[in-house]
Amino acid sequence: MSQRIEGFSKLTKTEKIDWITQTHFKNPEKAKALLTQYWNSDTALQNRHDEFIENTLSNFYISLGVAPNFLINGALYTLPMVTEESSVVAAASNAAKFWLSRGGFQTQIINTFKVGQIHFLFEGDPQVLNAFFEKNKAALLESTLAFAQNMKARGGGIQSIALRDKTALMPHYYQLHLHFKTADAMGANFINSCLETIATEMEQLAEKEFKSKELEVVMSILSNYVPDCLVRAAVQCPVSELSPEKGWTGEAFANKIVEAVTIAKKEPYRAVTHNKGIMNGVDALILATGNDFRAVEAGVHAYAAKEGQYTSLSEAWIKEGLFHMELTLPLALGTVGGLTKLHPMVQWNLELLGNPSAEKLMQLCAAAGLAQNFAALRSLVTSGIQKGHMKMHLLNILNQLGATANQKEAALDYFKKHTVSVQAVGAFLKNKNT
Amino acid sequence: MSQRIEGFSKLTKTEKIDWITQTHFKNPEKAKALLTQYWNSDTALQNRHDEFIENTLSNFYISLGVAPNFLINGALYTLPMVTEESSVVAAASNAAKFWLSRGGFQTQIINTFKVGQIHFLFEGDPQVLNAFFEKNKAALLESTLAFAQNMKARGGGIQSIALRDKTALMPHYYQLHLHFKTADAMGANFINSCLETIATEMEQLAEKEFKSKELEVVMSILSNYVPDCLVRAAVQCPVSELSPEKGWTGEAFANKIVEAVTIAKKEPYRAVTHNKGIMNGVDALILATGNDFRAVEAGVHAYAAKEGQYTSLSEAWIKEGLFHMELTLPLALGTVGGLTKLHPMVQWNLELLGNPSAEKLMQLCAAAGLAQNFAALRSLVTSGIQKGHMKMHLLNILNQLGATANQKEAALDYFKKHTVSVQAVGAFLKNKNT
Repeated sequence: MSQRIEGFSKLTKTEKIDWITQTHFKNPEKAKALLTQYWNSDTALQNRHDEFIENTLSNFYISLGVAPNFLINGALYTLPMVTEESSVVAAASNAAKFWLSRGGFQTQIINTFKVGQIHFLFEGDPQVLNAFFEKNKAALLESTLAFAQNMKARGGGIQSIALRDKTALMPHYYQLHLHFKTADAMGANFINSCLETIATEMEQLAEKEFKSKELEVVMSILSNYVPDCLVRAAVQCPVSELSPEKGWTGEAFANKIVEAVTIAKKEPYRAVTHNKGIMNGVDALILATGNDFRAVEAGVHAYAAKEGQYTSLSEAWIKEGLFHMELTLPLALGTVGGLTKLHPMVQWNLELLGNPSAEKLMQLCAAAGLAQNFAALRSLVTSGIQKGHMKMHLLNILNQLGATANQKEAALDYFKKHTVSVQAVGAFLKNKNT
Repeated sequence: MSQRIEGFSKLTKTEKIDWITQTHFKNPEKAKALLTQYWNSDTALQNRHDEFIENTLSNFYISLGVAPNFLINGALYTLPMVTEESSVVAAASNAAKFWLSRGGFQTQIINTFKVGQIHFLFEGDPQVLNAFFEKNKAALLESTLAFAQNMKARGGGIQSIALRDKTALMPHYYQLHLHFKTADAMGANFINSCLETIATEMEQLAEKEFKSKELEVVMSILSNYVPDCLVRAAVQCPVSELSPEKGWTGEAFANKIVEAVTIAKKEPYRAVTHNKGIMNGVDALILATGNDFRAVEAGVHAYAAKEGQYTSLSEAWIKEGLFHMELTLPLALGTVGGLTKLHPMVQWNLELLGNPSAEKLMQLCAAAGLAQNFAALRSLVTSGIQKGHMKMHLLNILNQLGATANQKEAALDYFKKHTVSVQAVGAFLKNKNT
């Protein structure tokens, strides 16, 4: 086992790269050259990026694109979108343009509560624990004052603390369940610091009050499930104005969209992909603004399953001649803290958005999600999803096969009526050469 | 509304940047300079990245780190991890090292079926539809032969096709439900091409057989819900060898981990964050290998909710003196197609992993997820999650505030015993200066 290495994290970046390329690559020099080709020419800037995580070797590029013409609550935005998936930016742009002439997106914050929990075991009498909690509640909250002042000044902080008896789930299991507001911060560090401080305080108070180890904390951590941190985006227009293209009446198109959303409400296999399409738009903004997409994804999909069967996050209906579409999402986001000030491109993207508050960013994400959802459904119920996808796919294959500009043009024409595959494109180029 | 723009997608990159920076930025020149600072010095390479998506302005950096010493089924790997979140790579590395001396990770593929559906409405007699389907099944499958040969040669293709009556969910709603294998491709393009081809064929056959519009396709698309595309990773060792650090017996630690996982099995607020931690590891590899994290996230979290209540994806138990931990994940991944050949850094990461098959990559991702889960639980039940996080957080704040090397060192020492916040670090630096 010659690849085992001790003390790797303590090596310099160059030493790490030397070991990696010599251990794992056929051509170490070539592998090294590629890593350095992706470094930024500004050394200080590169150092900054290197410090974001551990054992950094280089930068992984994800393209930053933009989708203009987003009319949201009457104001126009150009959304920055960071994504590796072709067609996502094009779809967002098309949906934005479509709704621009139909009143745009209306968005609203429903609420912004976040949750943190201290999970602990208590082997004594529940009544005694209750009394202990009531007696010490103020002291538990006060233990956070040393570092919570700043958050309080910004309008955030702990909103409530409750003792919850969960012994039906597991013997001796109780929680302190807390609600937080965290202003423009996502709040993970603040919430976890509060929870760990309160947990330590609780253990210390319990040691004085109970016999040894009767109360034992298992863990203290925020929840990424945020069903009370909700934002809604909606679009509406007369059915008669909904025609997406020649050959489609507004009514036929509206009915198809409603059918497609109904299917996504009722069939989990479809709902998962329906919501995945929504998240194509949301995550592109999440990444662009330095937020944590794993946290958002976990919270969103758990919310989609909250009634016991996984279902669509969006709704569509027709009422009194008006077509309506609406998306409700749980989103815990930040526009301060984390990477926001540290990653220059995140700062750039936030400036592009007019340096939004966290609540504003939630609304922009919801609009992006709804736009993406509408665009995907529009493709699906009209020409199919492959038409748009395949043009980008074809271009990628052509690049990969080293096609010339003339060959590209001929291929784009030919494959309007033929199914794209690496094999088919290869055969086409071969024929063109002979 | 002066920011509305027509024909944006047809502008050159430079024209797009000019419009964006002049429309949205206080200092357009500075905004332009930042975008170009992030361009690659190799113009051809930059052009390639620009073509991945639409309206590309620049590259968004996410750091590429590595976690060595992953022993998986007896072979050693260094995992490439693309993440913006500090502590993720460190946690993976620590977990890898911990299990390296305890037998490493065991992984296995359970199955690799993917799903695609044609959703359609049929207003006639269900018996007649059944007969129509049985009569034309072979013709429907044959319609894909023109482009499915290559996939078939690689051992993939359509595995089954079934007509499903879903009229209980919505009037007249039926599906063709198909299973696919897609070899080393993620398969989205292949599956969607098959489905759209079959749907068109079905509509054409129906036109001959039924009166006009009696059968109407709503949409055809793959599902990102892949409960039959499963991989499992496991670790085990004698409880007596599980001690993570001084002051902890293996038994006490094992019990705490089992308690923590039991809580995540039973309490959705905890389960969501528990699984988010798993995905920190999985997604870092998903990004590094050019796969689509939205697809994976949607499928994974829907799977976590499949029994009706959202729950932990991992299990932990003690049996006959052995501690066991296991993670089962639905993962539809590709190591060919998509960005794999096009994004040089994806190619680099795949070479680092020994150019794995899709099945191998599924296993590496599952191991990364289990490692991350173990590391998070280890922190949570021992010192708390903030200790590790806060060191990186502190370094980031110090960089942001422009601290010198000496100040950094002093701060790292001081904040071992004090709670980190921007305010507290600012105050500390101010005191150091005076």
